[in-house]
Amino acid sequence: MMNRSKPIDVAILGATGAVGQRFIQLLEGHPWFRVRELVASDRSAGQRYERVARWVLPGNPPADVACLDVLPLDADLQSPVVFSALPGDIAQAVEWRLAEAGHIVCSNASAYRMHADVPILLPEINAAHADLIGVQREKYGWGGGLATNSNCTAAPVAMALAPLRQFGIEAVQVVSMQAISGAGYPGVPSLDIMDNVIPYIGGEEPKLELEPRKMLGALQDGQVALLDCVMSATCTRVPVLDAHVVSVSVRFAEPVAEDDIRGAWESFVGPEPVPGLPSAPLRPVVVRTQPDRPQPRRDRDEGGGMATVVGRLRPCPVIQGWKFVALAHNTVRGAAGCSILNAELLAERGFLA
Amino acid sequence: MMNRSKPIDVAILGATGAVGQRFIQLLEGHPWFRVRELVASDRSAGQRYERVARWVLPGNPPADVACLDVLPLDADLQSPVVFSALPGDIAQAVEWRLAEAGHIVCSNASAYRMHADVPILLPEINAAHADLIGVQREKYGWGGGLATNSNCTAAPVAMALAPLRQFGIEAVQVVSMQAISGAGYPGVPSLDIMDNVIPYIGGEEPKLELEPRKMLGALQDGQVALLDCVMSATCTRVPVLDAHVVSVSVRFAEPVAEDDIRGAWESFVGPEPVPGLPSAPLRPVVVRTQPDRPQPRRDRDEGGGMATVVGRLRPCPVIQGWKFVALAHNTVRGAAGCSILNAELLAERGFLA
Amino acid sequence: MMNRSKPIDVAILGATGAVGQRFIQLLEGHPWFRVRELVASDRSAGQRYERVARWVLPGNPPADVACLDVLPLDADLQSPVVFSALPGDIAQAVEWRLAEAGHIVCSNASAYRMHADVPILLPEINAAHADLIGVQREKYGWGGGLATNSNCTAAPVAMALAPLRQFGIEAVQVVSMQAISGAGYPGVPSLDIMDNVIPYIGGEEPKLELEPRKMLGALQDGQVALLDCVMSATCTRVPVLDAHVVSVSVRFAEPVAEDDIRGAWESFVGPEPVPGLPSAPLRPVVVRTQPDRPQPRRDRDEGGGMATVVGRLRPCPVIQGWKFVALAHNTVRGAAGCSILNAELLAERGFLA
Amino acid sequence: MMNRSKPIDVAILGATGAVGQRFIQLLEGHPWFRVRELVASDRSAGQRYERVARWVLPGNPPADVACLDVLPLDADLQSPVVFSALPGDIAQAVEWRLAEAGHIVCSNASAYRMHADVPILLPEINAAHADLIGVQREKYGWGGGLATNSNCTAAPVAMALAPLRQFGIEAVQVVSMQAISGAGYPGVPSLDIMDNVIPYIGGEEPKLELEPRKMLGALQDGQVALLDCVMSATCTRVPVLDAHVVSVSVRFAEPVAEDDIRGAWESFVGPEPVPGLPSAPLRPVVVRTQPDRPQPRRDRDEGGGMATVVGRLRPCPVIQGWKFVALAHNTVRGAAGCSILNAELLAERGFLA
Repeated sequence: MMNRSKPIDVAILGATGAVGQRFIQLLEGHPWFRVRELVASDRSAGQRYERVARWVLPGNPPADVACLDVLPLDADLQSPVVFSALPGDIAQAVEWRLAEAGHIVCSNASAYRMHADVPILLPEINAAHADLIGVQREKYGWGGGLATNSNCTAAPVAMALAPLRQFGIEAVQVVSMQAISGAGYPGVPSLDIMDNVIPYIGGEEPKLELEPRKMLGALQDGQVALLDCVMSATCTRVPVLDAHVVSVSVRFAEPVAEDDIRGAWESFVGPEPVPGLPSAPLRPVVVRTQPDRPQPRRDRDEGGGMATVVGRLRPCPVIQGWKFVALAHNTVRGAAGCSILNAELLAERGFLA
Repeated sequence: MMNRSKPIDVAILGATGAVGQRFIQLLEGHPWFRVRELVASDRSAGQRYERVARWVLPGNPPADVACLDVLPLDADLQSPVVFSALPGDIAQAVEWRLAEAGHIVCSNASAYRMHADVPILLPEINAAHADLIGVQREKYGWGGGLATNSNCTAAPVAMALAPLRQFGIEAVQVVSMQAISGAGYPGVPSLDIMDNVIPYIGGEEPKLELEPRKMLGALQDGQVALLDCVMSATCTRVPVLDAHVVSVSVRFAEPVAEDDIRGAWESFVGPEPVPGLPSAPLRPVVVRTQPDRPQPRRDRDEGGGMATVVGRLRPCPVIQGWKFVALAHNTVRGAAGCSILNAELLAERGFLA
Repeated sequence: MMNRSKPIDVAILGATGAVGQRFIQLLEGHPWFRVRELVASDRSAGQRYERVARWVLPGNPPADVACLDVLPLDADLQSPVVFSALPGDIAQAVEWRLAEAGHIVCSNASAYRMHADVPILLPEINAAHADLIGVQREKYGWGGGLATNSNCTAAPVAMALAPLRQFGIEAVQVVSMQAISGAGYPGVPSLDIMDNVIPYIGGEEPKLELEPRKMLGALQDGQVALLDCVMSATCTRVPVLDAHVVSVSVRFAEPVAEDDIRGAWESFVGPEPVPGLPSAPLRPVVVRTQPDRPQPRRDRDEGGGMATVVGRLRPCPVIQGWKFVALAHNTVRGAAGCSILNAELLAERGFLA
Repeated sequence: MMNRSKPIDVAILGATGAVGQRFIQLLEGHPWFRVRELVASDRSAGQRYERVARWVLPGNPPADVACLDVLPLDADLQSPVVFSALPGDIAQAVEWRLAEAGHIVCSNASAYRMHADVPILLPEINAAHADLIGVQREKYGWGGGLATNSNCTAAPVAMALAPLRQFGIEAVQVVSMQAISGAGYPGVPSLDIMDNVIPYIGGEEPKLELEPRKMLGALQDGQVALLDCVMSATCTRVPVLDAHVVSVSVRFAEPVAEDDIRGAWESFVGPEPVPGLPSAPLRPVVVRTQPDRPQPRRDRDEGGGMATVVGRLRPCPVIQGWKFVALAHNTVRGAAGCSILNAELLAERGFLA
């Protein structure tokens, strides 16, 4: 594992938004990375972070970050690592340019997730996809590279399914109950969600039906082959602050015993060097045995918010397979935390200049 | 339709509980029925209703009911119609005895729902099952009769599927997001449900996988044949006051077009005399066209809380059929309101002494 | 009371906002008024209401209103009565112009509340202030007139204090717990208010310390003299959908007995013709005797949302007077409902052209 | 500060309840104390903790505590320190007996708070009251001692007022907005509190009007003289998980400048050895400068949940003094965390056998 004499500087794009703030919070006291540059829209650029950011997390922003001046989107960044929490449309131009300019860009934006040469990294399940950084360098002559993390709901789905790949995943049905923080800030109006469920999230279901197939796919000859399975998703918003819950039904190629599934989850670990990375949870998949778990408020912080918690495993007579409930913290494992873990992997793999 | 010179007296069993209160609220100003007897556990019996009932609905109990004395469970009731909001175990002995004694018992309890001679009535979809009252009288020599309404989550599932029976329902998968009022009072502790989802409700899933098949089944030779389809349910509790939401996937015997489903819902009406009953909604199934509906808070009171509201119809590639979202008010259509409609049907059919 | 052969047309300014929608909802089936004109910002003008309004109340907008085309702010309105739910800054120019042009403008905006010639009408307590319409006509040559209703939190404070004016109100301390609907739509982000209290509402406290004094003041020689009392307010936002709760402490000029206060509340009625107006509640002030009332969810719809509900009366040793809790529905009594009642009063008083 | 070679064993009374669980959570990894004995009602006694405790905090109970057998209330305890989270009525007999038997009992129960020989310890403001342990030993011949912490709402009131004692506190008015966790588990039914405020908490207001006066009083000749001020409280329950908010108005003996109050808060520290105790927050009182703070969700974890956070300081014309908003985490600073800090103080003072 890396033993660095000095910290690696990182920049955060979209630093004033909800996910940008989560990056800042999670990077406080990080053993390798140090937040040195904050980038946001022109409205905020040129001002001190603490003046322009409406901090929506507990407490106040860390003092050493609060006093930084916010840089504009076209700034000439110095940090080798760039985390992006930009909206998809803005991310498109900015992230490509920064990868070209030599930065390792770890992005939470959706812009490049399905690009053939860009991985959706979830290190425990597809660390090998990091090889696409090499493909990028060769193909585009980049000094840097670009890796994304998945949609926040796709993360627990892919993580819970990864240990089960060995059984031949054929079909997956998902109904999600998603937290309000997934919509950013100001995001969901309280008048819409209090005492209510909104059974629709714009653009979410197609992502959930596609991204896990890429994450779970195999990298061959510099290309990721989508996992060959059919997926169906229904996404809903519920009055919960953090953590997306998914009710999953899965059909396998052949009969699988309950103990085999449970055992696969409990023994699941990422490949080296993932388990030793600073942000990797002790166990990527945690199995709850109580009948009424996992629950967002009680399980979202498992493994520092980086674990996927599963439970309620039982047969599904309709899909002729199994069904279970899973959850993960949507702004940690499903967003900023995953991007940071991705950057740790890329640093450890030696992709930093 | 009935034109009565004087109101029909009704008794309410379990009158102090949450569903008992809903009976009282819905019967205020009812054109046919008048609440005359309130029955509760020994703890409350002998005291004025307003002193022993912790009223959990808005306002205060109606003045003419508030002043009634609560009767014990073994009271000799005078009312021809008895509504039961008793817990399942207590209901078992009491309801049978009252049916035997000549009362028409319309029950929200689960005790007799799956009894071969007792209907789970949802008048718009299976009014003919009321014939089982005749079977009961013949078989047991009763002067009265016993009809149940379904589990509160089964109601919107059965109602949304009923218009689609013509297409040959083969498989149904349901994930529910249920309101806290479904657990009665005191019911769900706020420490459990605030900022949380509980992905389990004890005993609920088996009911949801069975009751709709009985409700949707055909009555032949004095027996209800369960609808021949496979069902799979996952039940969750969400921080919503009233209305259960269900995400439903359904596979039909043959291909069905979207317009056929939509048309079946929009044209659906109950058989005579159901549409004219006082508690029947103008339209049993209401289709929402906005992409983000139905929503509990905004759709639960449709049709006075007696309509089932559906939306989000789209293909499901996994079940190879269709998926949609439906909801109904769990303590109105899913409990007290349905029992009242059932009693109206039985009265109109002439089953009252 | 008016007996009109045909309905009075009304226009609604700011019709697409949360309060504008409440106007539309409350006016559905109104015995005197009929919604004929909807006015909103340029963004919406020229389009059908149902296409541009994101309806945040239950159900859908009434069909006969949904199909109206939205008019721009500078439209030449035909309706004799104009209800305004405009933001304060826009209201300033528009309302004055419309009053000048002959319309009776009943406004929920704050722009003119403290204008010397404009009443803050709360008919049960200050119907006489409607005389200011005459002052306006004389002073400005208007054919119409302008009346406001108070800030939504000031309404229950003024209403609960009005019956106690006779005891000599000297000092009033208020801590409010206000519903999210008071901030309009999209209003309060759910990320701010879920599992939280926000102990500050911009601009609210000064209004609460001033408006009740005008409402409770006496009209003499065409001028309202503020009630001579000192007020102190703390305003907070709580996770409640509708109804503002106020904890009030009040000091009187002389000792008052508990029964005198309770009696004053219970016997309180507005002056003629207020009690007979269509939107007037049977009792403007309703006293709850249970120790844990009033509660927003259980008491906000009292009197169709037009009653102020009070309870928890007990001595306050610090202020050396009494303290109690009151609440009213903030978008009905505290906004649209009060404006409608004001218009009814002005119509009945003969101010309509 | 203590440098112990081995940990001090502690017992927890009422270990299965919500506050008992908080004790267990906060003591995990404590540098001095180790949980060795768990005591609960007869229903749980004799069984493993993990089998009988319905864990309501995040995650699961710590493994080394989960496997302990629960002891009955009359068990012969071995631990020198006993934390009590018992209900008041049961606490009365048990706590006295244990103090007599040589244990240092730090109790969250209300039973002995107002007993003349028992301190309500809030170390930063009244560490000297610990001398009452000596009084107890002399008077009753105890080998142990008994100290309480205050009602959970009294804690932030006393803490925020303590630095202001120098200005001569004459009158204090408090309106609280209290979290649901203050009522324990199952506690507040969700049907009561969702989308609601309950403006009453049984027995709470008298405590809030008395306990701060004892905490802020001076110990002279072995007796605590209540602070000579008049207090008035209104207590409400709001839909918040943790942290009680108080809106406070205070009148001083003489005029005080805003900067003097702010300065008194910011410079406030407890007397030696309090600041160095393991559970003492860096700053007991933290001043927020944003206009909309403190907020429960964003400020309750300040100082590990042990800080009192204040803000919104401004003049109050009615009380002729100042008003502000304060909050503290009710089950940490207002309950278990404070008891642990009290035990640390008593250990450091040498009261342990």
